[in-house]
Amino acid sequence: MSRVANKPFAASIITLFPEVFPGTLGTSVIGRGLRENLWTLQTTNLRDFAFDKHRSVDDTPAGGGAGLVLRSDVLAKAIDFASPKDDTRPRYLLSPRGKPLTQKLAHELSHEDGVILVCGRFEGIDQRVIKSRNLIEISIGDYVLAGGEVAAMVMLEAIVRLIPNVLGSSLSHQDESFENGLLEYDQYTRPIEFEGQTIPKILTSGNHKKIAKWREENSQNLTKKRRPDLLKK
Amino acid sequence: MSRVANKPFAASIITLFPEVFPGTLGTSVIGRGLRENLWTLQTTNLRDFAFDKHRSVDDTPAGGGAGLVLRSDVLAKAIDFASPKDDTRPRYLLSPRGKPLTQKLAHELSHEDGVILVCGRFEGIDQRVIKSRNLIEISIGDYVLAGGEVAAMVMLEAIVRLIPNVLGSSLSHQDESFENGLLEYDQYTRPIEFEGQTIPKILTSGNHKKIAKWREENSQNLTKKRRPDLLKK
Repeated sequence: MSRVANKPFAASIITLFPEVFPGTLGTSVIGRGLRENLWTLQTTNLRDFAFDKHRSVDDTPAGGGAGLVLRSDVLAKAIDFASPKDDTRPRYLLSPRGKPLTQKLAHELSHEDGVILVCGRFEGIDQRVIKSRNLIEISIGDYVLAGGEVAAMVMLEAIVRLIPNVLGSSLSHQDESFENGLLEYDQYTRPIEFEGQTIPKILTSGNHKKIAKWREENSQNLTKKRRPDLLKK
Repeated sequence: MSRVANKPFAASIITLFPEVFPGTLGTSVIGRGLRENLWTLQTTNLRDFAFDKHRSVDDTPAGGGAGLVLRSDVLAKAIDFASPKDDTRPRYLLSPRGKPLTQKLAHELSHEDGVILVCGRFEGIDQRVIKSRNLIEISIGDYVLAGGEVAAMVMLEAIVRLIPNVLGSSLSHQDESFENGLLEYDQYTRPIEFEGQTIPKILTSGNHKKIAKWREENSQNLTKKRRPDLLKK
């Protein structure tokens, strides 16, 4: 799928903490993209969809156990508000149980109309709303957070920087980590000498062929040492 | 290593965007822990350590290529300011080239005196400062961000929630994803019926042995389907 020309990528976030957005997404090139309308950000406060006098959004887990579980009925209402029936955007639930976010998926999503991101909190989310509202569980890494808000920011930052004109047309992505299946090579810049350490001579030789070869080997060695799992893929 | 009793976990962040902190780290249980001094957060603005009249922190990559590289001399000064010689805290550089952050590492770091986190930006960091200042490169996932700030927030949230009293003593971590090598089982809560879907009967049976068995099987099946790589470990 690809987005209609000139239509900005539309991100909608369902959260109990709308006040933390845009946060890091309001900074640097990502924030400039937001101000220039290359992408848009809308937050929906889950608490607004509670229907008892205490504005409860959660309850104890069926079968017992620690923590609280987000209610399916309250969350379903919030999702239906943020993402009406004709909405073509995929819906993700940030969760350590999800499939891992990858650079490949970030590229794919950068061509979509946008995304709906549901931020989990507490012990989890009632499984029935995940099923009925087609939420795709996605994880940013193999660790546990206090909530999905910072994970939603990570996912959006990874996607938005790939949207045309966000990074500026002069920047190429091809040498970055994961773009060619390898970790990026070592980088150096001025000064030529730093605390007795110099820049590898090849890099200042002006010989582009040798520089490309040095970088390729450096990437290969680093990946072999740190992430042999990437080489198997 | 373990922290001296009652001494808060001390996080120091070196960044070009100190204004985005604490961000999500100021919210919910993590933010309450910060206000209750269970952990502390200090930011150092890298720009303050530039020494030319343009306050430059970066320069073009040796050997050519897109983007800009953070200078070793400027960054070394900022690190030496934030982390003097007798500082025992480990120093991490958030980078897609790093070893992946795991729940196990988050547990280990939650017992340390704290951490120094360096947020990368642009195309990368001069390799010589990584070496001379013993920066451990660490990655929060296999995707590329615009900078290390949101990654630093992720890393701190994962660590800080494991510090005693941050989540509250009643909450157990043992059933969470990754704590026992499996993804967490499906959760349900009230109402008993949601849009025609009911809660699995076993979970409301009161039979704790059967509930434990159902959850174990559910975790196993989910992990097999979504993350067979976790079962191999």
